[in-house]
Amino acid sequence: MRMKIKALPFEVRRHFVALSERDSKELGVLSGDRVKISVGKKSIVAEVGIIPGMVKDGECGISNLFLSEIDAKEGDGAEVVPVPKPKSFQHIRKKILGGKLSKEEIYELINDIASGSLNEVEVAAFVSASYMLKMDLDEIEWMTKAMIDTGERITFERGTVVDKHSIGGVPGNKITLLIVPIIAASGLLIPKTASRAITSATGTADTFEVLANVNLSVDEIKEITERVGGVIAWGGATQLAPADDHIIRVEYPLSIDPKPQLLASVMAKKGSVGAKHVVIDIPVGEGSKVPDVDIGRELANNFVELGRRLGLNVFCALSSGGQPVGRAIGPALEAKEALKTLEERKGSSSLIEKSLGLAGILLEMAGRSSNGYEDAKRIFTSGKALEKMKEIIEAQGGEIFSSKDVLVGDKTYTLKSKKEGAVEAVFNKTLVKIARAAGAPKDKGAGVYIHKKRGEVVKEGDAIITIYAEKEWKLDNAIDIALQEPAVEITGMILEKFPSVRYLGGE
Amino acid sequence: MRMKIKALPFEVRRHFVALSERDSKELGVLSGDRVKISVGKKSIVAEVGIIPGMVKDGECGISNLFLSEIDAKEGDGAEVVPVPKPKSFQHIRKKILGGKLSKEEIYELINDIASGSLNEVEVAAFVSASYMLKMDLDEIEWMTKAMIDTGERITFERGTVVDKHSIGGVPGNKITLLIVPIIAASGLLIPKTASRAITSATGTADTFEVLANVNLSVDEIKEITERVGGVIAWGGATQLAPADDHIIRVEYPLSIDPKPQLLASVMAKKGSVGAKHVVIDIPVGEGSKVPDVDIGRELANNFVELGRRLGLNVFCALSSGGQPVGRAIGPALEAKEALKTLEERKGSSSLIEKSLGLAGILLEMAGRSSNGYEDAKRIFTSGKALEKMKEIIEAQGGEIFSSKDVLVGDKTYTLKSKKEGAVEAVFNKTLVKIARAAGAPKDKGAGVYIHKKRGEVVKEGDAIITIYAEKEWKLDNAIDIALQEPAVEITGMILEKFPSVRYLGGE
Repeated sequence: MRMKIKALPFEVRRHFVALSERDSKELGVLSGDRVKISVGKKSIVAEVGIIPGMVKDGECGISNLFLSEIDAKEGDGAEVVPVPKPKSFQHIRKKILGGKLSKEEIYELINDIASGSLNEVEVAAFVSASYMLKMDLDEIEWMTKAMIDTGERITFERGTVVDKHSIGGVPGNKITLLIVPIIAASGLLIPKTASRAITSATGTADTFEVLANVNLSVDEIKEITERVGGVIAWGGATQLAPADDHIIRVEYPLSIDPKPQLLASVMAKKGSVGAKHVVIDIPVGEGSKVPDVDIGRELANNFVELGRRLGLNVFCALSSGGQPVGRAIGPALEAKEALKTLEERKGSSSLIEKSLGLAGILLEMAGRSSNGYEDAKRIFTSGKALEKMKEIIEAQGGEIFSSKDVLVGDKTYTLKSKKEGAVEAVFNKTLVKIARAAGAPKDKGAGVYIHKKRGEVVKEGDAIITIYAEKEWKLDNAIDIALQEPAVEITGMILEKFPSVRYLGGE
Repeated sequence: MRMKIKALPFEVRRHFVALSERDSKELGVLSGDRVKISVGKKSIVAEVGIIPGMVKDGECGISNLFLSEIDAKEGDGAEVVPVPKPKSFQHIRKKILGGKLSKEEIYELINDIASGSLNEVEVAAFVSASYMLKMDLDEIEWMTKAMIDTGERITFERGTVVDKHSIGGVPGNKITLLIVPIIAASGLLIPKTASRAITSATGTADTFEVLANVNLSVDEIKEITERVGGVIAWGGATQLAPADDHIIRVEYPLSIDPKPQLLASVMAKKGSVGAKHVVIDIPVGEGSKVPDVDIGRELANNFVELGRRLGLNVFCALSSGGQPVGRAIGPALEAKEALKTLEERKGSSSLIEKSLGLAGILLEMAGRSSNGYEDAKRIFTSGKALEKMKEIIEAQGGEIFSSKDVLVGDKTYTLKSKKEGAVEAVFNKTLVKIARAAGAPKDKGAGVYIHKKRGEVVKEGDAIITIYAEKEWKLDNAIDIALQEPAVEITGMILEKFPSVRYLGGE
């Protein structure tokens, strides 16, 4: 059908065309169907949106962004014809019907996801089918390989490449900021790509961005890693395993995190950077992603087996995930805590022990040490890790090299204990909620500092948490939550809950 | 957060607000999240869309359509705060995790679907979870009742209300245009609501629209049914079981038709109009929705049991669905064939036998006959059915009372046989494809007439199908398909496929 192009003054994610209701009926298409739009010899396939008032009859509305792809401008004539859904949609249907996908089918599917040829409802159907009906390890292996093959890759000229990954779910987990400099200082290469927060208070990319630029290209990641031994870059700025980003985008609105996609996502990122040895941190505990040890072990087995199939040496560590790692939550607070720990060579034991433990495993896997923990500790306490951290910050264009230069929110509120006792429980989800209400991750200085963790003794009037914010109204919102929903449970040391019983012992 | 309202000059289906990337970060929301927009004392909950270029920082873009709901206009100040997903989203997650939903959960869910509070990705997740993980009959019963309770209902002052439904999938199925006048002529009430085509060549509402107005309100359906005994109205123009429309909208892009939703959808429409006796036509055969008799029987059992739980007397008929009913496919062609059959009191045996059979079942169910088929036939051959049809057309504001006044497309092409033999197979899906390419259902006059059906003898040069179109280019597209993909398979009466064997028998 002959139509006239209207340039839409806004940008939509994928190829999209707005049609009038009359014209879409004329073409026999509904919203979500595809049409091919041809101008001269150039053409694009776009998804139809029928939005009354956006275009007139006879017009096809295309975002300015895509007009250049077909060398067209407002008012040009275009030929518009319906085209079927991509063939890979049939593979999604096969999965929905409970079938096992072949290698070729998975490659077609991941290719179409990576190129944006499948829309969100279709990708969501695939992801939720994977969640409900599972995928076997063959399918997961093919999916991982397809994710790697549909993206950019980094090949290093020299050195042994190692990597670490934490599957997330525990707040305050800034261990990457300690592990990367330790490993880089040991002579191994660690081109760490990290994510930004979606539902958490900060992602490692958000945290390191407080100190340096994390929007690195694949070439920059390669160059800096080869020069200083390591980087901490935002994975989303690269084209490493890009299908993964599309999958994550539909997982968020459904609040699901299917195991096949989790496994493939982690391993594809590692495979893309050519890692040989990978350590995977699986936090286990209430309020983290993995509620109990059995599920953690099964996941660990899957990671190791998938690594074997991909030629990656994988080691998994189940870690304590029931409360935050370290004491700071939020981008600047976490960057400050990590840098301070490197400077002082001491600090929160949960942060230091976990970082040295995982770094040590990597040193042993790569054959650099027979006692990895001790060697990692030596690099940490010698100050070499701090020196390496400064090199990495400088290489990534940063200008903050000292924890005292890291600015945190100047609007603060400290919640104090009204009774004495000991901390019985710390609630990860509440802490994240408070930190996000305070402005994290958008406001870098916002977050929560936790003064008392599980097992610690509390006196009346002791500070329990301090909320940091950049804006007064966000601080108020965060305080409201903190007062309604305690982040920490304190059990009294006297049995004050039973007023009819008098406890006669001393304090 | 304080923002300024921008009026968006187009209409989107649900409450939608466009935010800039900066502001959505500030609010901590992503596309698909909800915010509450308050102007003075009025407020709406809207779904966030982050579409660069649509609004400036500080602006919230709302469709004109919804501004009146909060008495707001362009430039007004509004308070925007994030709100959580509806509680019913947790019920969708429960289903995804394989749980059984309670009555209360299903009511909340259907209520939120009916009111548009859940978005397409969320409804799609529910529908595909129902497809993959099934629902039991309790859940289906509650879903049906919730669909009825969240919509309008019709209560008739007099008479016995009966209804029919065909689950679809077979082209040319214009039996409603014969059954409704026969039943109405018998003195029973039949307030038939029908659907429009989504993927087929025509829906009953599209077909009857050729003769009369089908966009009737609930009050009009009641008034006309009480006056003349029956109507054929488009269900989508009413608010009868509106949740169903939202569910159908997500089934289309996923090409799935889960049994729980199919059962609930049919029975909710019947329950909403207060039908006491319902006959359900289940076409069985290749190319229809139900490929074999066993699946058809199971579905029939489910319908009958669901009817029992709802207090509806249900009878199912498995019918032959392997080839079209009658010979015409497409809105005007089918309306013409139905009217002509009523006028001549003869015609395609598949059409007449099926219509009389189903009408007869209804007469027996309602206690009006001990030999329903014969009584239905008497009404048909006496001309009473034709008279009633004219009354119904007139009551629905129609002006076409004779089949010769029904106009069909004047661009035609007849495909002729190049060999002689007999029709071995007729392909439903190809016929629909050709009819849609020719312009159906949008171009009322477009469609296909099939001259030779299964078992019929064909001579060289005999017409096989005639394609009708209103536009030359659409006719060309339809011809292309018809030539590439035969709609009819003709088996030669001599063994011409084996050239090395000479068959010596006569013709």
